[in-house]
Amino acid sequence: MDPSNWQTYLVTQESVSAGRSTLEIVEAAIAGGVDVVQLREKDTDTRFRYELGRELRELTAEAGVGLIVNDRVDIAQAIDADGVHVGQSDLPVSVARDLLGPDSIVGCSTGTVDAAEQAEADGADYVGVGTIYGTTSKDVAKHKDGVGPERVADVTDAISIPAVGIGGITAGNAGPVVEAGAVGVAVISAITAADDPRAATAALASTVETTKHVEHGGATE
Amino acid sequence: MDPSNWQTYLVTQESVSAGRSTLEIVEAAIAGGVDVVQLREKDTDTRFRYELGRELRELTAEAGVGLIVNDRVDIAQAIDADGVHVGQSDLPVSVARDLLGPDSIVGCSTGTVDAAEQAEADGADYVGVGTIYGTTSKDVAKHKDGVGPERVADVTDAISIPAVGIGGITAGNAGPVVEAGAVGVAVISAITAADDPRAATAALASTVETTKHVEHGGATE
Repeated sequence: MDPSNWQTYLVTQESVSAGRSTLEIVEAAIAGGVDVVQLREKDTDTRFRYELGRELRELTAEAGVGLIVNDRVDIAQAIDADGVHVGQSDLPVSVARDLLGPDSIVGCSTGTVDAAEQAEADGADYVGVGTIYGTTSKDVAKHKDGVGPERVADVTDAISIPAVGIGGITAGNAGPVVEAGAVGVAVISAITAADDPRAATAALASTVETTKHVEHGGATE
Repeated sequence: MDPSNWQTYLVTQESVSAGRSTLEIVEAAIAGGVDVVQLREKDTDTRFRYELGRELRELTAEAGVGLIVNDRVDIAQAIDADGVHVGQSDLPVSVARDLLGPDSIVGCSTGTVDAAEQAEADGADYVGVGTIYGTTSKDVAKHKDGVGPERVADVTDAISIPAVGIGGITAGNAGPVVEAGAVGVAVISAITAADDPRAATAALASTVETTKHVEHGGATE
């Protein structure tokens, strides 16, 4: 499981799924070509996340898709996930690393270059950079107060582990994030709130893929 | 660390402490003779609980007092707590046991005899029985809808691991809980919301101790 291959990264949040289950959304995302799924589901109880996580592990393992658990190292271990993703208010990266050992993936949300450098120094395998377009999952149209794709460029210049962009990203605006150096993009709403989550995932994957090819073409010419 | 010695059990909740820090409350409780502290602090973020947990571990270790973490196996491991306490909405007892190994303590909240028997079968070291007096931490005066001390009697008749009563317990009403077979009582407000948490702990400890002596005296005569 190598985060540098994570072009499309779904973060789950049933509350924005328009009544569809997270399992249904993840199934569609897998069909659409998602590379990794993060079990997040903030504001649900531990047992719910554990039970859901077991089901997601089955689905993702079958499809060869990564599974990361937000915040909870214990749930990650209990469901045999590939690793955890911690934010600045969660367990420190170094503690998550100690608990999980060297073979699990530890990712970290970082909004600044300093935080990204710290995450790398503490043993993170990848960072999430954002909020790129300053939105929340509940209001995808509000693209302000984001750090912008330029922050991705600053971060990827400073660290050697992969970065994914997160926050307000859609198939329509993912290009600049990848051009700035992100290996991929993480989304909640762009997939979860879409009328057709499978098509939305495929569109997102296509944007990332196409941008990388153009980038690569440009760099080698 | 043997739960059968836990006569007074403090569950932390800074939100009912009238502005005093949890650290301050725990220090006072230790001075008053508390046997074990459970880091709970629902609705605070992971980093807060981790940092607080490290401080509590230092205090409790120095005093020879037990430290248990509510819900979070990962935080318990990270701060080297003595174990975890899980509720019916947390990780299953068997999963917590698997993650922690045989030497850590796993406790479980149980409201019924069935749940207590299940917890014992799944490997719990003790159960919390409640809510005894049907109160919440926010309204200690409201003693209704509790399972009552009689539920403790039913549970302790059915299982062989120790039980502590929890919910609305004070120095004034702890006696019947111990008479019913609890090894001790767990409280939030009776200590945390008290004007003098040290004296409140000592009073609680005294009620439990006295009741046990009377019980013991009665049983041997």
